[in-house]
Amino acid sequence: MNATNGQGTVLAIDAMGGDAGPKAVIDGAAYAVRKGLKSRFVFFGDQEQLEPLIASAQELAGAEIRHTDNVVAMTDKPMHVLRRGRDTSMWSAIGAVAAGEAQAVVSGGNTGALMAVARKQLGMIKGIDRPAITALWPTPRGRTVVLDVGANVEANEDQLVQFAIMGEAFFRSLTKVEKPSVGLLNVGAEDLKGHELIRTAARVLREADPEMDFKGFVEGNDISKGTVDVVVTDGFTGNVALKSAEGAARLLGQWMKETLTGTLNAKLGALMMAPGLRKLKDRIDPSSNNGGVFLGVNGVVVKSHGGSDARGVASAIKVASSLARRPFQNAIAETVKAVMDRREQLSEAVEEDQTIKAAVV
Amino acid sequence: MNATNGQGTVLAIDAMGGDAGPKAVIDGAAYAVRKGLKSRFVFFGDQEQLEPLIASAQELAGAEIRHTDNVVAMTDKPMHVLRRGRDTSMWSAIGAVAAGEAQAVVSGGNTGALMAVARKQLGMIKGIDRPAITALWPTPRGRTVVLDVGANVEANEDQLVQFAIMGEAFFRSLTKVEKPSVGLLNVGAEDLKGHELIRTAARVLREADPEMDFKGFVEGNDISKGTVDVVVTDGFTGNVALKSAEGAARLLGQWMKETLTGTLNAKLGALMMAPGLRKLKDRIDPSSNNGGVFLGVNGVVVKSHGGSDARGVASAIKVASSLARRPFQNAIAETVKAVMDRREQLSEAVEEDQTIKAAVV
Repeated sequence: MNATNGQGTVLAIDAMGGDAGPKAVIDGAAYAVRKGLKSRFVFFGDQEQLEPLIASAQELAGAEIRHTDNVVAMTDKPMHVLRRGRDTSMWSAIGAVAAGEAQAVVSGGNTGALMAVARKQLGMIKGIDRPAITALWPTPRGRTVVLDVGANVEANEDQLVQFAIMGEAFFRSLTKVEKPSVGLLNVGAEDLKGHELIRTAARVLREADPEMDFKGFVEGNDISKGTVDVVVTDGFTGNVALKSAEGAARLLGQWMKETLTGTLNAKLGALMMAPGLRKLKDRIDPSSNNGGVFLGVNGVVVKSHGGSDARGVASAIKVASSLARRPFQNAIAETVKAVMDRREQLSEAVEEDQTIKAAVV
Repeated sequence: MNATNGQGTVLAIDAMGGDAGPKAVIDGAAYAVRKGLKSRFVFFGDQEQLEPLIASAQELAGAEIRHTDNVVAMTDKPMHVLRRGRDTSMWSAIGAVAAGEAQAVVSGGNTGALMAVARKQLGMIKGIDRPAITALWPTPRGRTVVLDVGANVEANEDQLVQFAIMGEAFFRSLTKVEKPSVGLLNVGAEDLKGHELIRTAARVLREADPEMDFKGFVEGNDISKGTVDVVVTDGFTGNVALKSAEGAARLLGQWMKETLTGTLNAKLGALMMAPGLRKLKDRIDPSSNNGGVFLGVNGVVVKSHGGSDARGVASAIKVASSLARRPFQNAIAETVKAVMDRREQLSEAVEEDQTIKAAVV
């Protein structure tokens, strides 16, 4: 991934979101700066708590604090936050993007509330029915983007097409890869398999979006292989795929640990391969892939995992900073319009064709 | 898992199924016997190929061969096999179970054809709409059964309930655990999440199957944790979950290998932990969990992975042998009937209740 350094961009940070409290958030921002990030920060939250934390991080000299009285709790219902959440750090941070003062927002708060408040304040991109959440999935080639991993439990064929277009634009913005490859998640590579609606979505992408490098169907194991840059699925399947893989990886990691510490010999052996093991640990550390993006809303909204440490928060901030530099919302709106127009022409053409055939018969 | 040794049972083996050819199948049967299996074997396939292979394996002395002229190809369509496949090893092997000569059949052949021929010859269990394929998933506690992993791409609420009942009976037969715990795969543990039909299935299981140790919803990461013994889902989601996890495990394995062989020091270190690494390799070897069972048909049909080596085939044979000893088809039919009867009573009660309320209002 070729993340830029974010020079000239402003990031709105909900400093109160996340189970780990404001310290992990501030430490994460400082860590990102140490790693070369040049974005400016505006932190939203309790001034009294934030001031000493920011003062003690020299990397954050000059960062702005905007005081808010309240915090969205992890258990707050989205409806409740929409009605009574205007004084929260989450609301104000998203508001900064809506007002054009920041180019992206990062929050570790309650996913449902974040999504609801983002839709309310930013609105949806024209032509997009529903938002989708992305996940970054490590592969031998770098990272694959999977979406939707949980914004909606269902998606119809049009929404899958929209997810594909959003995923493509997102990957391009994040990585500067001009023509990301896109696949639809299915249970078999043959065209005949899978749900009717996935087959329809595949046909639309193939026929109505000639610009896309659409590779057709991929299977679950293709995600970790990195067969395509963008894997598209509904939020139910994507969420299960992500969590099943995380669970398997965690179990393997646990067994590996038992192996490395099982006997005295094993412990000595582990010492001898310490540099390699550190690299392995980095590769499989979930922190390195933290940062789910809410695609579909008119602005860059990055969800940091609630339990993230400083490194995890820094990863989400890096994603936000890369996207802030290269807005992709207009590109999505334009592509969706072009594809949907073309789709209509195609189906009219098919209907005419059928009418002619019927007349002839 | 407390597999029994299978004394007194007969297994019908499709010796021609699988990409690895009859040698892997025969070697697998011999391997299973060396590991203590006491079932008798009847091998179906080309006599000329099988005779020398079996003769050279002393563990298989006395095993029967039944010659068949033909083989189901991996690319054959199920319909084609149903119409013209009566002379194949797969057809005859399943036929032996239908005729009561064997208590279970193992085949590494074409999944679609195996399913179609099994349904045709064995019929479905009374009360079961559709078959489901099981997968054994390693966990710290042993193994979790996941179903369906690909027999059908969709499942309605009744079918999910049936899968739960089948999975419970299957796990009990395989492991002798009297009250296996069962969970429905979902995207969140809260009752409000997920599809409507999953919520309905959960309600039916909770209310109409008081005998079942039903734990409600589980998420993708619960599979590898071993939170429940049986995880129930539709074939699309189950297939994606299984393959996504396999893909992640394979990637981790690859990275681990790079770590262990990266430098001279790492290689020496790996030598020192050789016994632990062997154990780790065994634990994550897919062969150890080979053997998908087709639940719902009236008989035990075990699908061995087409590319399995002898150890993998032996694992599938062990599953078949355990199940052959403890038939569970009748138990499934009885439970499904009881649950569906009770479900109807419950909904009648609800309707009456509503009628009364409506009358009062």
